[in-house]
Amino acid sequence: MSAIVPVILCGGSGTRLWPRSRKARPKPFLPLVGSRTLFQQALDRCGDPALFGPPLVVAGEAHVPLIREQGGAGLRIAVEPAARNTAPAIALAAALLDPDDVLLVCPSDHHIADIAAFRAAALAAAELARQDCMVAFGIAPDRPETGYGYILRGARLDGGFRVERFVEKPDRATAEGFLAQGGYSWNGGIFAFRASAFLAELAAHRPGMARLVGESAEQGGWADARFDPAAAPWQAIKGESVDYAVMENTARAAMVPADLGWSDIGSWQALHAARGGDAAGNHVTGRADLLDCRNVMVDSDGPRVSVVGLEGVIVVVDGDEILVTRASGAQLVGKLPGPNAP
Amino acid sequence: MSAIVPVILCGGSGTRLWPRSRKARPKPFLPLVGSRTLFQQALDRCGDPALFGPPLVVAGEAHVPLIREQGGAGLRIAVEPAARNTAPAIALAAALLDPDDVLLVCPSDHHIADIAAFRAAALAAAELARQDCMVAFGIAPDRPETGYGYILRGARLDGGFRVERFVEKPDRATAEGFLAQGGYSWNGGIFAFRASAFLAELAAHRPGMARLVGESAEQGGWADARFDPAAAPWQAIKGESVDYAVMENTARAAMVPADLGWSDIGSWQALHAARGGDAAGNHVTGRADLLDCRNVMVDSDGPRVSVVGLEGVIVVVDGDEILVTRASGAQLVGKLPGPNAP
Repeated sequence: MSAIVPVILCGGSGTRLWPRSRKARPKPFLPLVGSRTLFQQALDRCGDPALFGPPLVVAGEAHVPLIREQGGAGLRIAVEPAARNTAPAIALAAALLDPDDVLLVCPSDHHIADIAAFRAAALAAAELARQDCMVAFGIAPDRPETGYGYILRGARLDGGFRVERFVEKPDRATAEGFLAQGGYSWNGGIFAFRASAFLAELAAHRPGMARLVGESAEQGGWADARFDPAAAPWQAIKGESVDYAVMENTARAAMVPADLGWSDIGSWQALHAARGGDAAGNHVTGRADLLDCRNVMVDSDGPRVSVVGLEGVIVVVDGDEILVTRASGAQLVGKLPGPNAP
Repeated sequence: MSAIVPVILCGGSGTRLWPRSRKARPKPFLPLVGSRTLFQQALDRCGDPALFGPPLVVAGEAHVPLIREQGGAGLRIAVEPAARNTAPAIALAAALLDPDDVLLVCPSDHHIADIAAFRAAALAAAELARQDCMVAFGIAPDRPETGYGYILRGARLDGGFRVERFVEKPDRATAEGFLAQGGYSWNGGIFAFRASAFLAELAAHRPGMARLVGESAEQGGWADARFDPAAAPWQAIKGESVDYAVMENTARAAMVPADLGWSDIGSWQALHAARGGDAAGNHVTGRADLLDCRNVMVDSDGPRVSVVGLEGVIVVVDGDEILVTRASGAQLVGKLPGPNAP
């Protein structure tokens, strides 16, 4: 049976977890939940050799040292000459693997609480991918989130469903309708594709991109577990997400329901939710004294933080930067001067 | 006319402005409002030689270096061998000054916004003191504060009133009644006494204390603008406040109304009030970025503090200690482990 090859995507830095996440220390490479980094946890989840082949990481040059440090010298990395969004990154991985391999595409900066559920969903997705379905994980939604795309399920398949349609980030009322109606899942950016099937779909819907990725792969080369595609054709690619380039165009879109305790850790509030809390909902990393507090999270890399009489507040200390934010306002953190300094 | 001699009391350290105020750097010696420390401002207020004689500071040994550093080498200090509360401290000053001098007793850790009003009240108080009244400043109250004692005014005198009675810290309902009723002022711990009259009242109401202070003063000596009373009799004194020892017992208690913009800076919230704020009520000392905040105070000695979406919150950064407190809960700061560490 063809192998399931984890394809770990390391893109973007993001500002929403500033000041812990910085340009030089982006989110995937931080131990945000537990002692392993999100990137290491992405590798760990696919670390069982009975289920998964050796992973392939796709990343930019800037992240290579962190990937080597955290993933080991033998880990295969395909280095993008420039960021071109997810469709070219996945196509590059598909071009480098065996045509029959199943790519299990995983972002490197998400958290998944239920590893067993993830593996079960991965095996179900791989089965559908072997039948040349383009498979998205349909994350079980627990709130009318407006920050994610949604997937409406269609007819039942073995281990999953056809996709009736993909829906871009909805407004609040629409999201509430989705949850009330049922049949909608979040699109969490986890996919399974047979390599040759993915490349065929890309060639059908984005022939120019497929050709340029193919040239980059053919003219590139491996050295020391690192693949460098040819830069010139890669630079010419017009970046696009796999959702736009493939998933919304293919007639073979499928989804597997996935109730994983999934979070994209998209804000400090989301990180607090992933970390959990004590009886009062408080969570402390580092040194802190909390007095008369509820639903407070403190994360300090050194100084003691003393908090008095607050509810729903997050305090982060990182070197010479201190963030104090209302939890429900944490999505504004990216708009501060701090994370936007040159 | 006899001189008005400012007697500046430097007692207690306090924990309510932790972590800025520490054992080694107590509140009077911090520049909490403006660039001069509270102690320096207490000297400045009485610095006009046309109105006031050279001041006398009464303090413990631990504070002498800070007093010299901030007050100058020539400043007279009477050094208490042990803390015995305010009555013995004032009696020591009275014993060291000319019997006809008027002591203007001032705490060193309060803030007074209206200097002209303070001087006017001091002159009025001195006039009454020259008539052997025991004079308290009656601070105009602006809220039903339960943390201060109150003074009920009696019959009118020239420039002030007799004291009808002193009231210990009231409960909330009682304090609200005082404000509704009128005639009540806060007892802010600022007094004026003729030296010999004070010692006579003390001898009448606390003869043991008066005798021990007298022995300490007689057996002590001056050197380099520093007076050291004899330790043995001083140690034997039973400490007591001037309110209990003298003011509540004397038949000669008087008060001068004093609307000074006074604050004892008894909490971080009180300090925010003394410092004021911008149109949104925010006040920043040091480096801070505030986004969507109201009535937030930040005071950082180094790191940048970024605050998002909060109202009525105070953030203080002092070396390796960070305090984040709800403004209205700031009186609990003293109960944190931080200020109570051995």
